[in-house]
Amino acid sequence: MRVSKLFLPEVTEAIEKGDLESLRTVFEDLHPSDIAELLTELTPERIAAIVRILRFPKGIEVFEQLDLQTQANVLTHLGRTETINILEELSPDDRVDLLKKLPEQTVDSLLPFMAQAERDDVRKLLQYGENTAGALMTTEYASLPARMTVADALVRLRAIAPNSETIYYLYVTDPSRKLLGIISLRELVLAKSSQIIEEIMSQAPITVSVEDDQEGVAKAFAKYDFLAIPVVDKESRLVGIITYDDALDVIVKEQTEDVQRLGAVEPLNEPYFQTNFWKLTQKRGLWLLLLFVSEFFTGSALRHYEKEWANALTLVFFVPLILSAGGNSGSQSVSLIIRGLAVGDVKLRDFFKVVRRELIMGIMLGVFLGGIGMLRAASWDSPPNVCISVGIALAGVVTAGSLIGACLPLLLKRIGMDPAIMSAPFVATFVDVTGIVIYFNVAQFLLSR
Amino acid sequence: MRVSKLFLPEVTEAIEKGDLESLRTVFEDLHPSDIAELLTELTPERIAAIVRILRFPKGIEVFEQLDLQTQANVLTHLGRTETINILEELSPDDRVDLLKKLPEQTVDSLLPFMAQAERDDVRKLLQYGENTAGALMTTEYASLPARMTVADALVRLRAIAPNSETIYYLYVTDPSRKLLGIISLRELVLAKSSQIIEEIMSQAPITVSVEDDQEGVAKAFAKYDFLAIPVVDKESRLVGIITYDDALDVIVKEQTEDVQRLGAVEPLNEPYFQTNFWKLTQKRGLWLLLLFVSEFFTGSALRHYEKEWANALTLVFFVPLILSAGGNSGSQSVSLIIRGLAVGDVKLRDFFKVVRRELIMGIMLGVFLGGIGMLRAASWDSPPNVCISVGIALAGVVTAGSLIGACLPLLLKRIGMDPAIMSAPFVATFVDVTGIVIYFNVAQFLLSR
Repeated sequence: MRVSKLFLPEVTEAIEKGDLESLRTVFEDLHPSDIAELLTELTPERIAAIVRILRFPKGIEVFEQLDLQTQANVLTHLGRTETINILEELSPDDRVDLLKKLPEQTVDSLLPFMAQAERDDVRKLLQYGENTAGALMTTEYASLPARMTVADALVRLRAIAPNSETIYYLYVTDPSRKLLGIISLRELVLAKSSQIIEEIMSQAPITVSVEDDQEGVAKAFAKYDFLAIPVVDKESRLVGIITYDDALDVIVKEQTEDVQRLGAVEPLNEPYFQTNFWKLTQKRGLWLLLLFVSEFFTGSALRHYEKEWANALTLVFFVPLILSAGGNSGSQSVSLIIRGLAVGDVKLRDFFKVVRRELIMGIMLGVFLGGIGMLRAASWDSPPNVCISVGIALAGVVTAGSLIGACLPLLLKRIGMDPAIMSAPFVATFVDVTGIVIYFNVAQFLLSR
Repeated sequence: MRVSKLFLPEVTEAIEKGDLESLRTVFEDLHPSDIAELLTELTPERIAAIVRILRFPKGIEVFEQLDLQTQANVLTHLGRTETINILEELSPDDRVDLLKKLPEQTVDSLLPFMAQAERDDVRKLLQYGENTAGALMTTEYASLPARMTVADALVRLRAIAPNSETIYYLYVTDPSRKLLGIISLRELVLAKSSQIIEEIMSQAPITVSVEDDQEGVAKAFAKYDFLAIPVVDKESRLVGIITYDDALDVIVKEQTEDVQRLGAVEPLNEPYFQTNFWKLTQKRGLWLLLLFVSEFFTGSALRHYEKEWANALTLVFFVPLILSAGGNSGSQSVSLIIRGLAVGDVKLRDFFKVVRRELIMGIMLGVFLGGIGMLRAASWDSPPNVCISVGIALAGVVTAGSLIGACLPLLLKRIGMDPAIMSAPFVATFVDVTGIVIYFNVAQFLLSR
């Protein structure tokens, strides 16, 4: 990190002057990720020129670190031969991700020029649905036959390493590609030369299916601390591997989606500034509209109780306090439970445990806020009955918020939906009506005596 | 994953019967993470018995996968010799994390029985502040001298591998432990036997400082796709390494904190059910109180404008609609910007770009909701001036919400604070007063004509 900052002035100067040759010298010592970060400010045309001047393999390594949209934009400024070269050098999963970003017409015009092996690979990987293990995996894994000696395996490794994304796990397969076991490079290096792979490999390795959702894959990585996980088809044949860096990207992406949903935004799928303005406005507008229409009920409730508060206008002063207190406690519960479900601290079978805990906690927090609310009401010289109504309504609404915020995500999960689609604003809206109904019913009861 | 589910009935049966010997047979083929997951339901005493019967090294591997609190509880049911054995076998970072969980008295009684090397290690690691790279790192890395041949290095590797957390990166140091370069096991295995390490290692490796915050460390992993990152002290001496699995834990933990803060809960630091009930109530109560007191201003505003709405009670019907619309648009912006800052899509220098985008989007969304709000008001037979007031207030409050939700986290970051402490409810509360003021000022103006 410090390295890239030290180079920053030199780099910006060279870029401004268009001095590509001295850029190459500066970039020589920089990590491809740092270079890619420095390039993000430039036009795709400039980036294309720099990728070209960096040559193979540095140019490819930098290109790989650019985000997909930038990669696609850069390609439009490169010739067909250069494009084909880059596509062939990319790892199979990155290659397919990029091809998915390009117009179909462009892909059709590029495919015939790619080598047969890469072309077949692209066709195979393109068929897997988005967000599946198949779409995430690379086909460049290192495999070994079971009856080989350690010495022979080490020799073979030199041959297959250049075309393998990782050689730290070696996959032992039979001739039909059925996965028999796994041996790590660590184990291989430490074994005796004469030992047979079959005898030292781990059997019955943990695998994921090519159809599995990427979220499940990410969870497997968080749980098992693997560097890579093998992907098998229905016949238990090895079809690819997913490496931890791709799983890490999924974890970060899923987290982003959860935060956006919690804030009532349909997930963006792209970085904030790259999301089209109209698309973002639509995504937000839709949720705002839904919440707005739901909130109509609160308005209706307020209208329904007009007689109650028209006689004691001071009641109205406390409406925002009551609504926001319910929304806030609901927001707390929904965040706690959604995150608990995401990391596995809370499970569906804990439903009643959660309900009990949130109910008791909600009552305690509600009584606490209710007490303070009563003091506030008293300080505004409200009649005793209004003070009591405010106190009871606050206690009720905070309890309801806590309970509803905890139950809604669990119920969603129960019916097989993603609990994370339950946003905090939705819970708040749900609680608002409850708050108004409690408040004015209590007030009606107390003020009529 | 599928493996553990298949074994589940057998395991629960054996556990229920207390048949530990057959448990051992079943567990033989299970991954330690799966076993640990199955054990979480049991009492610490039972877990201790199972760890004991699993023997070395499986017992340790399973123990390592338990969460810290369970580890500490299990130790209370093991004898001193067993405890010392486990502590010595744990990797240095896990060992120190566990010791931090134990009562100081227990630690003092255990330390004298540990081997000198481990004891010194514990003392060294204990000194680093929480959430720093130093607290996260392990001291068991594999290092090589610069002037060694590849063949000699591979021989040496066999000797140092058992005491190294990873041997996939080998750290090249001089006699004073100054870090000279890095060579991966992949490069080593593929190099010619006669080559000298110095000639093939990568120079000027990317490092983190022992004092660095763990969040920065996690970001470095997400950016560079490293398996491990070296940690150096002020004199550039190698003091440890952080492996990607520990970085992954940090990423997930930081994310949990962000979600909890966004929902207005002080981060728990522990899983939901393990968090003490009173502690959680306090953490929530404090935020609820803060938000509640802030919301007093909205009540005061409502009270201030009593004259306006006492003459046109229909105005009150729309107060919840206006407040929630502002809160919702604020919640959307704050989620988008906090997450954008967390993953690096949004930077501090983008401040004015963000403001422009959110302002325009806020106006558009506001006009949209305002229009619908006017229709709603008309459908309730409100006088035209009230309809117009509702429309203008909605447009204003949604714009304000969007703008305030985006600006507050950026401003926090500007003054060097964590932008993630800005919760959605806080933004909503902030926007509420704005909404009331806009609404009644417009109404005052229109209704006085």
